[in-house]
Amino acid sequence: MKILFIHGPNLNFLGKREPEIYGTDTLSDVNSMLLKEAASIDKGIEPEFFQSNSEGEIVTKIQDAFENHNGIVINPGAYTHTSIAIRDAILSTAIPVVEVHISNVFKREEFRQKSFISPVSVGVISGFGINSYTLGLKAIVDFLKDK
Amino acid sequence: MKILFIHGPNLNFLGKREPEIYGTDTLSDVNSMLLKEAASIDKGIEPEFFQSNSEGEIVTKIQDAFENHNGIVINPGAYTHTSIAIRDAILSTAIPVVEVHISNVFKREEFRQKSFISPVSVGVISGFGINSYTLGLKAIVDFLKDK
Amino acid sequence: MKILFIHGPNLNFLGKREPEIYGTDTLSDVNSMLLKEAASIDKGIEPEFFQSNSEGEIVTKIQDAFENHNGIVINPGAYTHTSIAIRDAILSTAIPVVEVHISNVFKREEFRQKSFISPVSVGVISGFGINSYTLGLKAIVDFLKDK
Amino acid sequence: MKILFIHGPNLNFLGKREPEIYGTDTLSDVNSMLLKEAASIDKGIEPEFFQSNSEGEIVTKIQDAFENHNGIVINPGAYTHTSIAIRDAILSTAIPVVEVHISNVFKREEFRQKSFISPVSVGVISGFGINSYTLGLKAIVDFLKDK
Amino acid sequence: MKILFIHGPNLNFLGKREPEIYGTDTLSDVNSMLLKEAASIDKGIEPEFFQSNSEGEIVTKIQDAFENHNGIVINPGAYTHTSIAIRDAILSTAIPVVEVHISNVFKREEFRQKSFISPVSVGVISGFGINSYTLGLKAIVDFLKDK
Amino acid sequence: MKILFIHGPNLNFLGKREPEIYGTDTLSDVNSMLLKEAASIDKGIEPEFFQSNSEGEIVTKIQDAFENHNGIVINPGAYTHTSIAIRDAILSTAIPVVEVHISNVFKREEFRQKSFISPVSVGVISGFGINSYTLGLKAIVDFLKDK
Amino acid sequence: MKILFIHGPNLNFLGKREPEIYGTDTLSDVNSMLLKEAASIDKGIEPEFFQSNSEGEIVTKIQDAFENHNGIVINPGAYTHTSIAIRDAILSTAIPVVEVHISNVFKREEFRQKSFISPVSVGVISGFGINSYTLGLKAIVDFLKDK
Amino acid sequence: MKILFIHGPNLNFLGKREPEIYGTDTLSDVNSMLLKEAASIDKGIEPEFFQSNSEGEIVTKIQDAFENHNGIVINPGAYTHTSIAIRDAILSTAIPVVEVHISNVFKREEFRQKSFISPVSVGVISGFGINSYTLGLKAIVDFLKDK
Amino acid sequence: MKILFIHGPNLNFLGKREPEIYGTDTLSDVNSMLLKEAASIDKGIEPEFFQSNSEGEIVTKIQDAFENHNGIVINPGAYTHTSIAIRDAILSTAIPVVEVHISNVFKREEFRQKSFISPVSVGVISGFGINSYTLGLKAIVDFLKDK
Amino acid sequence: MKILFIHGPNLNFLGKREPEIYGTDTLSDVNSMLLKEAASIDKGIEPEFFQSNSEGEIVTKIQDAFENHNGIVINPGAYTHTSIAIRDAILSTAIPVVEVHISNVFKREEFRQKSFISPVSVGVISGFGINSYTLGLKAIVDFLKDK
Amino acid sequence: MKILFIHGPNLNFLGKREPEIYGTDTLSDVNSMLLKEAASIDKGIEPEFFQSNSEGEIVTKIQDAFENHNGIVINPGAYTHTSIAIRDAILSTAIPVVEVHISNVFKREEFRQKSFISPVSVGVISGFGINSYTLGLKAIVDFLKDK
Amino acid sequence: MKILFIHGPNLNFLGKREPEIYGTDTLSDVNSMLLKEAASIDKGIEPEFFQSNSEGEIVTKIQDAFENHNGIVINPGAYTHTSIAIRDAILSTAIPVVEVHISNVFKREEFRQKSFISPVSVGVISGFGINSYTLGLKAIVDFLKDK
Repeated sequence: MKILFIHGPNLNFLGKREPEIYGTDTLSDVNSMLLKEAASIDKGIEPEFFQSNSEGEIVTKIQDAFENHNGIVINPGAYTHTSIAIRDAILSTAIPVVEVHISNVFKREEFRQKSFISPVSVGVISGFGINSYTLGLKAIVDFLKDK
Repeated sequence: MKILFIHGPNLNFLGKREPEIYGTDTLSDVNSMLLKEAASIDKGIEPEFFQSNSEGEIVTKIQDAFENHNGIVINPGAYTHTSIAIRDAILSTAIPVVEVHISNVFKREEFRQKSFISPVSVGVISGFGINSYTLGLKAIVDFLKDK
Repeated sequence: MKILFIHGPNLNFLGKREPEIYGTDTLSDVNSMLLKEAASIDKGIEPEFFQSNSEGEIVTKIQDAFENHNGIVINPGAYTHTSIAIRDAILSTAIPVVEVHISNVFKREEFRQKSFISPVSVGVISGFGINSYTLGLKAIVDFLKDK
Repeated sequence: MKILFIHGPNLNFLGKREPEIYGTDTLSDVNSMLLKEAASIDKGIEPEFFQSNSEGEIVTKIQDAFENHNGIVINPGAYTHTSIAIRDAILSTAIPVVEVHISNVFKREEFRQKSFISPVSVGVISGFGINSYTLGLKAIVDFLKDK
Repeated sequence: MKILFIHGPNLNFLGKREPEIYGTDTLSDVNSMLLKEAASIDKGIEPEFFQSNSEGEIVTKIQDAFENHNGIVINPGAYTHTSIAIRDAILSTAIPVVEVHISNVFKREEFRQKSFISPVSVGVISGFGINSYTLGLKAIVDFLKDK
Repeated sequence: MKILFIHGPNLNFLGKREPEIYGTDTLSDVNSMLLKEAASIDKGIEPEFFQSNSEGEIVTKIQDAFENHNGIVINPGAYTHTSIAIRDAILSTAIPVVEVHISNVFKREEFRQKSFISPVSVGVISGFGINSYTLGLKAIVDFLKDK
Repeated sequence: MKILFIHGPNLNFLGKREPEIYGTDTLSDVNSMLLKEAASIDKGIEPEFFQSNSEGEIVTKIQDAFENHNGIVINPGAYTHTSIAIRDAILSTAIPVVEVHISNVFKREEFRQKSFISPVSVGVISGFGINSYTLGLKAIVDFLKDK
Repeated sequence: MKILFIHGPNLNFLGKREPEIYGTDTLSDVNSMLLKEAASIDKGIEPEFFQSNSEGEIVTKIQDAFENHNGIVINPGAYTHTSIAIRDAILSTAIPVVEVHISNVFKREEFRQKSFISPVSVGVISGFGINSYTLGLKAIVDFLKDK
Repeated sequence: MKILFIHGPNLNFLGKREPEIYGTDTLSDVNSMLLKEAASIDKGIEPEFFQSNSEGEIVTKIQDAFENHNGIVINPGAYTHTSIAIRDAILSTAIPVVEVHISNVFKREEFRQKSFISPVSVGVISGFGINSYTLGLKAIVDFLKDK
Repeated sequence: MKILFIHGPNLNFLGKREPEIYGTDTLSDVNSMLLKEAASIDKGIEPEFFQSNSEGEIVTKIQDAFENHNGIVINPGAYTHTSIAIRDAILSTAIPVVEVHISNVFKREEFRQKSFISPVSVGVISGFGINSYTLGLKAIVDFLKDK
Repeated sequence: MKILFIHGPNLNFLGKREPEIYGTDTLSDVNSMLLKEAASIDKGIEPEFFQSNSEGEIVTKIQDAFENHNGIVINPGAYTHTSIAIRDAILSTAIPVVEVHISNVFKREEFRQKSFISPVSVGVISGFGINSYTLGLKAIVDFLKDK
Repeated sequence: MKILFIHGPNLNFLGKREPEIYGTDTLSDVNSMLLKEAASIDKGIEPEFFQSNSEGEIVTKIQDAFENHNGIVINPGAYTHTSIAIRDAILSTAIPVVEVHISNVFKREEFRQKSFISPVSVGVISGFGINSYTLGLKAIVDFLKDK
């Protein structure tokens, strides 16, 4: 069971500034945590990690996953609210996708209330800090086992 | 650690019709599953369950929780989109709340895209079938431990 | 053929004030009229009547009808425009429903132009005074016979 | 008691295509049914039938009815949502009008939710197949008798 | 100087009902009044009158005017608010047009506030009863003399 | 002169949490204050108090007031913005109503800017803390004396 | 018959710039023309002229007219679209008002399409250059004579 | 305790027209009533009165109050709905302001539903006739005493 | 293979005015060009041409095509943006339709951006002058051959 | 005559999934078809093909075309609805552009109804499957020859 | 080179309250600073300063500038968002105008996002404290020199 | 003091086309001008220049600036109106940013009126041609010195 984790724009900056507010976990800490968590669920889970600030590269990576992965956990960052291209990539590959957000986007600006990704995802998890990723991992694994 | 699960309107009807579509799990099956899941996480977790079709009763139950529970997992059903009273109950009690939905509401009618509850919740989990409850349980427990 | 008539909020007040405007027919007069009308159509029709000012009680009554009635004639009153919970109850029970209104709601305030109930009803009858109920009875009986 | 039935655009096509979906009743079958139904209610009722695809002809027909009919049952078809001219014709003649629709327009596209005709009608009946016409006939007759 | 007066839908009904409200002037009275008024301004003015309830006929009449008239005074009635076809006819013939309304449309329903005709007219006169036509005649004559 | 005070949802929670912010006055303190204030204005004023979290119960209470009270002072809480049923209850009983709010709702979320109750009230008082109730009492008494 | 002409903001600048576009008529030329036109209609008409760039002064002038004039012809300029105060002044004095515009406002920016003044005016004349004033004079005189 | 009463545009016209509708109280009657009312509450209250039809003068008066008054009771009239300048004056002086309206603005046109002043006021009182001023006086005095 | 070309309102005026702008091709030139083009593609294609300024006549013509043609190329002109009746005619006959426009409607007024016809057409071609018709012919022929 | 074909995001995935629905034509098949089609029209036409999932790369490619191509046929995919940058690239290079879509975008989600590209294109072709490209080729060639 | 600086409503209050927040610079300090800055750029620049809380006075001042100044730097304060009259004054005088704001209006309330002045200005400078004025001076001088 | 200048999409095309309209200054001319200007202000200012058509590269460059620059002057071009990713990059690095535009965006299409960047910038400068950059340089330098 191969799971691709896609981190969208600005997530490479996680933990770089104001640790007292955002915590000291960097993106590589998050990935390490997910590797451990995956192993603790099932040895057969193979996580892969990808980060990009480019909408086009994320589209291409989702297409690549069509032949290489069973499911995707994506935090589309700002592209959540603006990218129809990523939505179309998910639609055309038809890979199961779980959308996650570190912050609770529903507490933020009006323009963050609309997601182009949610309607083409299995489900959405938002607001639990980096624990959103752990919950997303559990959700995609359970979903794939149920199929 | 006392966790209150609130099931909103029509959730008492779960599993009563069209099992081939909605599954055969009734609400009491869901509650049993959650009891087992809670025990498997930590013996100290005490789940309580409440279902009502009445907006006012849900408001009152949230107020009762102020003195009796550490956290709430709520599936507000249709009241998600119409009840400012439930939002205000959460605001005034300030108990940590996780909002869950069985279906992916973002795939449904326009009027289901707006939640009065999400902005006053810790976070939101939507679209994973009855597994949304399990993920919600995990999320609230992790949240309470982190505080 | 069991038909449930549901009268929504404030309909218990019918005929109580300003008889020169609203007529002197009370809700119990309406129900008597419907009993007579039903008998004149077909002896086998068994009408039942229910009134409530509470959204939650109406939801519960619709669920009860799932096992007890063949069709519903509902005047949802003010809940027509605000209750997704009643809509969901109709959706989940899948009982045929005819929506009726005493006044022509399309002549009234903007916010009365939108009905959450109409899209999940068989059809809508609005504006014929208490005769809307008689037409609704005829409509549901014809619909059930055609099935 | 002279009742004019006005069938709007495309209703002359009724029953011409896909009988398994729309039924095999043509517009002339509907008119025959209404003649029979009228006779069964009261021998004194004189139905007249009119169909046109032209907004202007419908306006003119409503004006003609001012001196020739006691009431109108109209299915304005697509003009329901676009014709202020028909609305004005009803307003200026002040003949009682009952608006009927074969399909439940509230289940259809957003632009079919607004009717220019409903606010100037006695009432509206929508969604009962060709039975909507029968109910409309009963409604206008009862209305005229009550006046 | 040939001036075409176009009366839109329902204006043929003027003076037919409720004389205490709308006056007893029929459309033919209005036309007679305009003939007299035109003569009193300038013997060389040749008014022609046209009324139709059909959008298409009004379009065709405007096209005919391209070779036969110097200016148009139009009361588009309900088509003011719905007809892009009449707007396009005015645009493509480029004849000077004055738009008039008997009632003050700005005091009426929201949907009467928008005119498709005004932006392609020389100017607009609204609210002066049948005197709006007299003012419109004066306006188009002055406009044509100034050119 | 019998005055009914209706406290809407969550007002039973007043003073229960964060006294440094919301004050230590509970709802029963407010009611005591109003009893004293009423007596100081006029011994003939008989206040009655009612609180409910249920929309339906508030509707029913307003109907009961039709035969038992001269005026109502209502703080509809969250139902201010969502309840057409309460609006209709006020409309159908036609009892004079003064709407009050503890906080200045105009400083809060967009969805709190619209009140279904204000257009059917005598007037509105908003933003003066629990003094809004005292001003509401004075307002309804003055209004009833002026009639 | 005393007629007050009110010229709103920036109309004092008429004819000062770009004569090839706006003409060389200054506001005082317009007023002279109106004096002549008034005399030609009826010696008993007494025009008075007022210009101000200040919303407040226009409000006060309309109030003064309450005791001194029979009717008003107003070109509210930019205040057409923004001034509720001028609307209220017209409403509270109830003097007949004719609204005029030199340009055809319906050909201009979206924000110029809404007039706060039109719904409280007898009627509106827009787009005929300074001839709009002449037509407005004729319109108000005819209106006052008909009353 | 110096209280400034600001009466906005058109309030100088109070009582001048249609006494059977608006009452015979002029603005100077209102001011006299307020002087008496103030004295009956507390001899130390010094009311001052100001009326203007000019937005700019009201802005300047509010600025003057910064050094001369403890609180303001303002009826901004039409400027309620259009003046950001008055809002900014209140914001920059930070004097406590109570907004009052004679009529219930929530029963009137849509454009009167939005107030630029309410969000920067302590609170709002609307709909109690000239009694709104008396309630406003009581409200500002209580507010200033509580500070 | 019988193809019906429908030219909507004002297209009969093509080439009549301002040849330097719109070209000198009249509608009959366009039709001749299409005859030649059709022959050059396939001798078996039988084009028929129809123009009308009347919405109702276009509806009727589409219905007639149900039994007489294999496909339609329509330039609905102004009715593109206002006619639900034409949309319904296409829907009820289910003939393949290609929508064409001479000008690029997306460069024009906002109200020309919405087409009621496009969602029920096979496809849309817009902006290529009279070449849009040639492309439309090719498109419908290819479509019919592919079926 | 050098024609650049630009295929936007996800078009590289054409034919990769669900051949029974989308056909088995891959993007390279489409390009081959276009080469053949171009040759059959005119040997002098030199097509070039470019695909990218990146908005920025498409912008750069359009700029490159400024010196290298005579016209562009673009299927902007999802960027149609979100990219002002591509619009600006077309604007600043001023190369003639034909916009094509495989599916009929007007049948799809609301957010696909708005194109940033159409208003800066010569014209638009939408809905004819991969034949849209062939029609687009013919359209740009005819356009360039006519210039 | 004569430059007029116009300070809109409430700017006369600058530096009067909360110096720790808004700084201690009064409007006269700002003007002194600008005099010095102007001299340092070019001895030939003659600044003039004007402040008013009245929309009408600002309109008049802009008209006066038509004959007396080469350019205007305006901070329209609250009138930025509400005054079409000031916009029209700029339009009719056609003097080059630079719009400046002390605060970054784009960080503030929604209603401050729309400026009636920006579209008729040369350019806009917003958010640099009183340095916005210095930048505005430099901008207008450079603009006038470039002409 | 290190200042990064970011030029968004299509700015690399500056000066390449229609020199009579856009001038002959290329982007490298602009950069040279800024180097000179910086030196003339303060030898310690070190400008760096970056241009990209890719949203993702601009995000990455802003992140790089976190450790390498004191301030940014950005012309985000088309991404101003569509990129939340660039907004988030600025938010997460918290570097002071000045937003500049060559043209006055407020004179252009509606969709260019909204900037995602302005609310997270120090301030905005728009409309002064390439002089906007010079003003932006002065603004950021003054801002950094004041801190």
